[in-house]
Amino acid sequence: MNVLDILIENLSKLPGIGRKSASRIAYYILKTDRSFADVLADNLKDVKNKIRTCSICGNYTETDPCNICTDPGRDRHSICVVETPKDILTIEATNEYHGLYHVLSGALSPIDGIGPKDLKIKELIGRVSEHDIREIIIATNPTIEGETTAQYIAEILKNLKSTAITLTRLALGIPVGGDLEYTDRLTLARAIQGRNRL
Amino acid sequence: MNVLDILIENLSKLPGIGRKSASRIAYYILKTDRSFADVLADNLKDVKNKIRTCSICGNYTETDPCNICTDPGRDRHSICVVETPKDILTIEATNEYHGLYHVLSGALSPIDGIGPKDLKIKELIGRVSEHDIREIIIATNPTIEGETTAQYIAEILKNLKSTAITLTRLALGIPVGGDLEYTDRLTLARAIQGRNRL
Repeated sequence: MNVLDILIENLSKLPGIGRKSASRIAYYILKTDRSFADVLADNLKDVKNKIRTCSICGNYTETDPCNICTDPGRDRHSICVVETPKDILTIEATNEYHGLYHVLSGALSPIDGIGPKDLKIKELIGRVSEHDIREIIIATNPTIEGETTAQYIAEILKNLKSTAITLTRLALGIPVGGDLEYTDRLTLARAIQGRNRL
Repeated sequence: MNVLDILIENLSKLPGIGRKSASRIAYYILKTDRSFADVLADNLKDVKNKIRTCSICGNYTETDPCNICTDPGRDRHSICVVETPKDILTIEATNEYHGLYHVLSGALSPIDGIGPKDLKIKELIGRVSEHDIREIIIATNPTIEGETTAQYIAEILKNLKSTAITLTRLALGIPVGGDLEYTDRLTLARAIQGRNRL
């Protein structure tokens, strides 16, 4: 195998990149000037060398604590609980939430052997106990694992504090621009259950 | 911008990679072990350092001449003319062609200022004159530029040799597994023109 084949082989290991995309990228790299390939290669090494996990929320960051945890402009009474650091990026892109985050590092999944101790639930309870948290948005995925995790955390938090923490969950329903006809039954059922008054 | 944002930014410059895929890849890199990122970074630099253009056919190669040009098992009487080195990979994947190749490095396009002198047509004529070539398959793309290029090369080659070189062009028609209803008019017209006897 020559170096071009090796590059294609390794690129196709990346998520969402099949063999065709991998070879398209490899040939693009060959065509563009050398500096771009060098920069990209350095970027790859940089993220592994410089990015760590925020010791407060679990977000990926260059500085510890991360930018969100140290930002004085953010609402420090609200925590949004997510499965992975990537979810923070996704939620931040909406520009709809301005509180803090907490990364669980996964979701409960007995099949995969992931129990409560494998997730950063203890750390979440610690933050809730020590700080004046008023709302917790549980933004785990709407999958069986994500729902189970949400239920589990909700139970623990309810038992923990008799004070008024508002526990919320992201709304389920038809996607914007979606079509009733092409919405699956479960989603439509949740959209009906969660119907809002006009 | 932190190094993670820079990586996402640069990944999204790659062909077929939007911002979402770029961040998915970046977070994947962060999650997998360091050695993979290092290997991929080295691969990127390697292809720029080690891959050159074959002086005979124009294919990308580590050795000059390339593996195809030096392979004694290939039919040395046949040349398949393509626009880019990537097309060689695509045709090789079919395992249907066992001759040599010639990369034009593009297609005629007056709008983009690409004329016959910008393509490796002179080199193709050189090869045809010096060697015993019996068939030339013109495998440029079925676009206006590709068709124009094919016509142009066909004219030159016809004038060049009165000897019997067979000039061919890839068949146009409905894709395998395609559906008449969803085939565009031009393709269907070409499929009818090119109909085969059963």
